[in-house]
Amino acid sequence: METKELRRIDEHKLRKFTQDVFLSMGCSQQDAQLAADVLLKADLRGIDSHGVARLIGYVRLWDKGRINPSPQIKIIHETPSTATVDGDAGLGLVVAPHAMNIALEKADKVGSGWVSVKNSNHFGIAGYHALMAIEKDMIGMAMTNASPLVAPTFSKERMLGTNPICYTFPAGKYPPIVVDMATSTAANGKLEVAQRKHLPIPSGWVQTKEGQNSLDAGELKNGGSLLPLGGDREHGSHKGFGLSSAVDIFSAVLSGASYGPWAPPFVAFLEPAKDQPGQGLGHFLGAWRVDGFRPVEDYKQNIDQWIERFKAAERISENQSVIIPGEPENLAEQANRREGIPLVDAVINDLNSLADRFKLQPIRFS
Amino acid sequence: METKELRRIDEHKLRKFTQDVFLSMGCSQQDAQLAADVLLKADLRGIDSHGVARLIGYVRLWDKGRINPSPQIKIIHETPSTATVDGDAGLGLVVAPHAMNIALEKADKVGSGWVSVKNSNHFGIAGYHALMAIEKDMIGMAMTNASPLVAPTFSKERMLGTNPICYTFPAGKYPPIVVDMATSTAANGKLEVAQRKHLPIPSGWVQTKEGQNSLDAGELKNGGSLLPLGGDREHGSHKGFGLSSAVDIFSAVLSGASYGPWAPPFVAFLEPAKDQPGQGLGHFLGAWRVDGFRPVEDYKQNIDQWIERFKAAERISENQSVIIPGEPENLAEQANRREGIPLVDAVINDLNSLADRFKLQPIRFS
Repeated sequence: METKELRRIDEHKLRKFTQDVFLSMGCSQQDAQLAADVLLKADLRGIDSHGVARLIGYVRLWDKGRINPSPQIKIIHETPSTATVDGDAGLGLVVAPHAMNIALEKADKVGSGWVSVKNSNHFGIAGYHALMAIEKDMIGMAMTNASPLVAPTFSKERMLGTNPICYTFPAGKYPPIVVDMATSTAANGKLEVAQRKHLPIPSGWVQTKEGQNSLDAGELKNGGSLLPLGGDREHGSHKGFGLSSAVDIFSAVLSGASYGPWAPPFVAFLEPAKDQPGQGLGHFLGAWRVDGFRPVEDYKQNIDQWIERFKAAERISENQSVIIPGEPENLAEQANRREGIPLVDAVINDLNSLADRFKLQPIRFS
Repeated sequence: METKELRRIDEHKLRKFTQDVFLSMGCSQQDAQLAADVLLKADLRGIDSHGVARLIGYVRLWDKGRINPSPQIKIIHETPSTATVDGDAGLGLVVAPHAMNIALEKADKVGSGWVSVKNSNHFGIAGYHALMAIEKDMIGMAMTNASPLVAPTFSKERMLGTNPICYTFPAGKYPPIVVDMATSTAANGKLEVAQRKHLPIPSGWVQTKEGQNSLDAGELKNGGSLLPLGGDREHGSHKGFGLSSAVDIFSAVLSGASYGPWAPPFVAFLEPAKDQPGQGLGHFLGAWRVDGFRPVEDYKQNIDQWIERFKAAERISENQSVIIPGEPENLAEQANRREGIPLVDAVINDLNSLADRFKLQPIRFS
């Protein structure tokens, strides 16, 4: 994050503004609140690539008629522990929490619950949805497919999204463990930062349109592609590709959404491919009740010990301990609630253009 | 694989021999057959590090009293879609398929089934167990924790196993998709090959005991450690660490097995750590019915199209297409069934020492 470019805004002001934009798109009060909550959660947790920076992107998709602000979200298939939901082209920010609630209800009744979703679009951070399981003492899971930007090992074609996987584990006296990761080596947000700063990127993040490894983040705009976690075959990129494939299949093949290179792009200036094999983007959400396996108190005693033991693992450098998955995001959330959410100028400009358009109060930093 | 060192043996002869060794350890006929089937499946699929090469390792654990050849495997906790199984220190090769059958029965009834297992040990290839879902038109999943060899990002301490994750997806006219991967950059088997051949290994596989990256596979024997998928922080090793942590928690914290650095080692010359927080190794197994989400025929039409589209993705080199996860193992299985299972001399010697000890016919290559 570039400190010189950013200003901080109070969480509640930004939340109200975001909600007003969704209301202006025609969302119900309830849906606008929910969608704003999902975006704000990303900004609070320091995952600013997935927060209000994307608000203008959702508006542009709505302009193109690709987002239905008043969807009829419905279950189209189910068993006691599974369901498929049709998102009716609604905001993924609304469809995914709705689907996760269905998964949580099923888990309440039979121990675990699983919902595949079709006909949706970008759902924000996977962590939001998976974290919904935590207060019920459940383990949460969320995946989604996404705009094709990643090439499989041995290919130069963009066939997959950054397809994240998220697992959330409740703990006892500590914050939950949150594994929330793109299955590419680097997420798009990190490339954007490198591009803005004109810095070279590490090997294994990006390849050119001919499939050659590159240290220039700009190659992505020249028809290049992101690489699966691992970077190249020798460093395990077939594993990143395998995980990304699994996310695509769970999210889109299992639900009847559009998969692989057909996944509809988030940027509104790219049209979805013709001859779509399914409907919209897909997600896969689920939860397991901890007490479906053992008493919650026994589990919590062990998970707390797990956290303490990993935190105490021998360090390579005295200044850097092991980072428990989710720890940086938990710390960011505490700081940002206290000090306000940092925004870069480019995002502030986008938000103020939305204020203009929808006749809302511009963003204030008082 | 080093062709000069290997000879091929007919699958059925090797199966019979393996079964006889398990019978000699005191396993029932049924358990010996099953355990041999799991090991042979690894050799057939070309994952020779997890096949009969490990048979002598199981015998040594039994010698130490760490394997119970006649376990009372039982469900100790359950809901309609979840259960925890106590493996009673039985062979993981027997305990895991037993637990997977419980998961499949639950999935039959309520759409999905999940079983965490404690008090087990090494279960062979994850793929065997997850593949059990395929003939029922279910998606399979298998994970296990394992002997601590992998250091978390920023640590020089061996805290995690190579902790594999496996997903299996049934297809229509094609073999199933099998994503079966260690969450370390490289599996131990690949390091052993490099060591035997005195070849340098790629950067990002191994670090020294001081936590410095190394190109020498031998550093593992000098107190070094394997690295999580990604290799270093810049290349996403925190993601490999996150996945490996998730596997450890699902397999061992959720079940009540021993987790992290306490996971009991596979090699019998290392004693399990004192003050174990749980019992034995843990696994996590499960399955989702495809028709819990949509009609199987619709899914199969889409998954076949997925395979065809990825196979046809633009190549970087004309000679190398995209490899569908599981494809090399499927091809190896066809070849090895036809031509026999290749064994290196070191493994043949180990097997013949078992033949001596248990008064069995030595391995013949006629």
